[in-house]
Amino acid sequence: MKFELQKTDSQTKARAGKITTDHGEILTPIFMPVGTAGTVKGVHTKELLEEVEAQIILGNTYHLYLRPGLDILEKAGGLHKFNGWDKPILTDSGGYQVFSLKEIRKITEEGVYFNSHIDGSKHLFTPEYVMDIQRVIGADIIMAFDECPPYPCDHEYARKSMHLTHRWLKRCVKRINETEPKYGHSQALFPIVQGSVFKDLRIQSAEFIASQDQPGNAIGGLSVGEPAEDMYEMLEIVNGILPESKPRYLMGVGTPENILEGIALGTDMFDCVMPTRNARNGMLFTTQGIINIRNKKWEDDFSPIDQELGGYVSTFYSKAYLKHLNKCQEMLAAQIASVHNLRFYLWLVGEARNHILAGDFAEWKPLAIKKLMQRL
Amino acid sequence: MKFELQKTDSQTKARAGKITTDHGEILTPIFMPVGTAGTVKGVHTKELLEEVEAQIILGNTYHLYLRPGLDILEKAGGLHKFNGWDKPILTDSGGYQVFSLKEIRKITEEGVYFNSHIDGSKHLFTPEYVMDIQRVIGADIIMAFDECPPYPCDHEYARKSMHLTHRWLKRCVKRINETEPKYGHSQALFPIVQGSVFKDLRIQSAEFIASQDQPGNAIGGLSVGEPAEDMYEMLEIVNGILPESKPRYLMGVGTPENILEGIALGTDMFDCVMPTRNARNGMLFTTQGIINIRNKKWEDDFSPIDQELGGYVSTFYSKAYLKHLNKCQEMLAAQIASVHNLRFYLWLVGEARNHILAGDFAEWKPLAIKKLMQRL
Ligand SMILES: [Zn+2]
Ligand SMILES: [Zn+2]
Repeated sequence: MKFELQKTDSQTKARAGKITTDHGEILTPIFMPVGTAGTVKGVHTKELLEEVEAQIILGNTYHLYLRPGLDILEKAGGLHKFNGWDKPILTDSGGYQVFSLKEIRKITEEGVYFNSHIDGSKHLFTPEYVMDIQRVIGADIIMAFDECPPYPCDHEYARKSMHLTHRWLKRCVKRINETEPKYGHSQALFPIVQGSVFKDLRIQSAEFIASQDQPGNAIGGLSVGEPAEDMYEMLEIVNGILPESKPRYLMGVGTPENILEGIALGTDMFDCVMPTRNARNGMLFTTQGIINIRNKKWEDDFSPIDQELGGYVSTFYSKAYLKHLNKCQEMLAAQIASVHNLRFYLWLVGEARNHILAGDFAEWKPLAIKKLMQRL
Repeated sequence: MKFELQKTDSQTKARAGKITTDHGEILTPIFMPVGTAGTVKGVHTKELLEEVEAQIILGNTYHLYLRPGLDILEKAGGLHKFNGWDKPILTDSGGYQVFSLKEIRKITEEGVYFNSHIDGSKHLFTPEYVMDIQRVIGADIIMAFDECPPYPCDHEYARKSMHLTHRWLKRCVKRINETEPKYGHSQALFPIVQGSVFKDLRIQSAEFIASQDQPGNAIGGLSVGEPAEDMYEMLEIVNGILPESKPRYLMGVGTPENILEGIALGTDMFDCVMPTRNARNGMLFTTQGIINIRNKKWEDDFSPIDQELGGYVSTFYSKAYLKHLNKCQEMLAAQIASVHNLRFYLWLVGEARNHILAGDFAEWKPLAIKKLMQRL
């Protein structure tokens, strides 16, 4: 994996760059649609390419490990072959999912014992095993196994948790250095900065992560319930320490506003279930603002969902038709809204990139946030 | 509406023809995907055109009347404008749905009183009102309001019900003759033959229906639980009476075998929820036979769903991937299987048509049924 920093904004920390993987290039800043179980919910692979114009998608190690399982994934020749997505894939480490299983996991120095949410079966994720799993999945970018502490948590817990994450990272790095990719394309490990909302811990963690000198770095444990201001503060501190020459990935973020602020603070990569989850609930992000398609006002609005956004789905279907489908709980409602919202998110980061390259990102950002976050 | 009979098979009653509507041509025999609430479940309009290659779709008067309702449909300029399907549409009369509401309807000479399945609100469908509703929906082919008796029912009930359907038909015809289409394209009324599984009633009904001299004719009240042999027997009798110069539509049928037998008996049009409903349950019709994607045997079968069928969906996704999606109850499983099964049904009637035109339909049909109905 290679990262080329193409331009840094003069007034903010925003950057435009290019990541090159064996599955092609990614122009940053970028948003990555989440494909939990090897599918972005409700979206055909062809639509991801042609409508959403995604450049990289996420897979979830925890879900893929349970279903279809490593045997099938290896027989398929990895996730790219299994789901037919021939562009870059990033897999999370499964840590976030496992730590969400509150009642059925136990954390030890060795790793995490947990029970499957599907059939209750017992499993152990160690840093080494999670690296092995991600080798089998075959993602282009793989994530270190970390503990993501809950919010709020006290300084003592956050400190201990951070150090555990650091020790686990060393084991991840060792395992990756001792093993080879399985399918002929290279895999880059991204370590994850933790430290909750404590400045001293975030500084310490960012320094440790930076010292590992991996191809890219991630910031975890944010957007977990803390105020947005705390998130931005942590991000500013961490991005000030992480090297400029490597991509920075803010995990699990967020609203269009969060993403533009994150970009302004020097972040290059984002992922979030928000565009697809909100789509299934009838909430649409558009170039004109936010639409709740359940509102009566859309019932006889026969204008396209978002003419300015372009693409088949956003310009072919009307708001009134989508409202009708949503009201009838038709699958097509979720399909349309998911493709639309993801296209919007890719448009958003593309617009940010264009403005960074044009040199007017700082002027554009507040106007964009005002327009895009207004409720229509 | 115009019907041109292009060829009649020399060994069977199978026919190839062409229906011309103001929204374009339909080559028969044809299968019509069911779009209950103005959407074929899980299928984008673009996919209906490009993947399924549908030539005409169905809408349900009962469902569209309740949601989005006549006000919205009229403001939209009819269903074609509302859902963006610019090819022919056929609407059923709502009778079948209303008569399925066993506990909450009352049949009188005037019409049927019923309560909405959505909010319990009270409604009355009369033959006249159902014609008015279908004028507002704006379908190219509209169905008479009939009573579809349950199966089994005794001769007395079937006879009385049939005569009620006939009296209602006269009122439908009168209303249609007294009113105009709303959107500039013409609308053809199809009356419906009833009579349950009683030969004398089917003969009497077919003669009455034929005497009404409408642009096409339908056969209702079959495939409601009776043995397939009874259905074929009734169909043979009825098709022997209905004029050759007009299309014959067998409502709500059926399996690939039912459709090929129906074609052999001189039927031109079919509709059924089976391809989409079975798709949602993981049952696929393919050019090689029937697949239950839930079977373990598909778990590591990385071959395309149906290479011979062609199209993106059927050749891009593997059986193993579809099995995985189905197991995870991912929406995409239903989407893929629905597009695939509908494409199969359109391929099936297209193949039948090709063999009728080539003159070898009678030889092809039993081989096709054997191959297509086998479980893989
Ligand atoms: Zn440490
Ligand atoms: Zn009569």
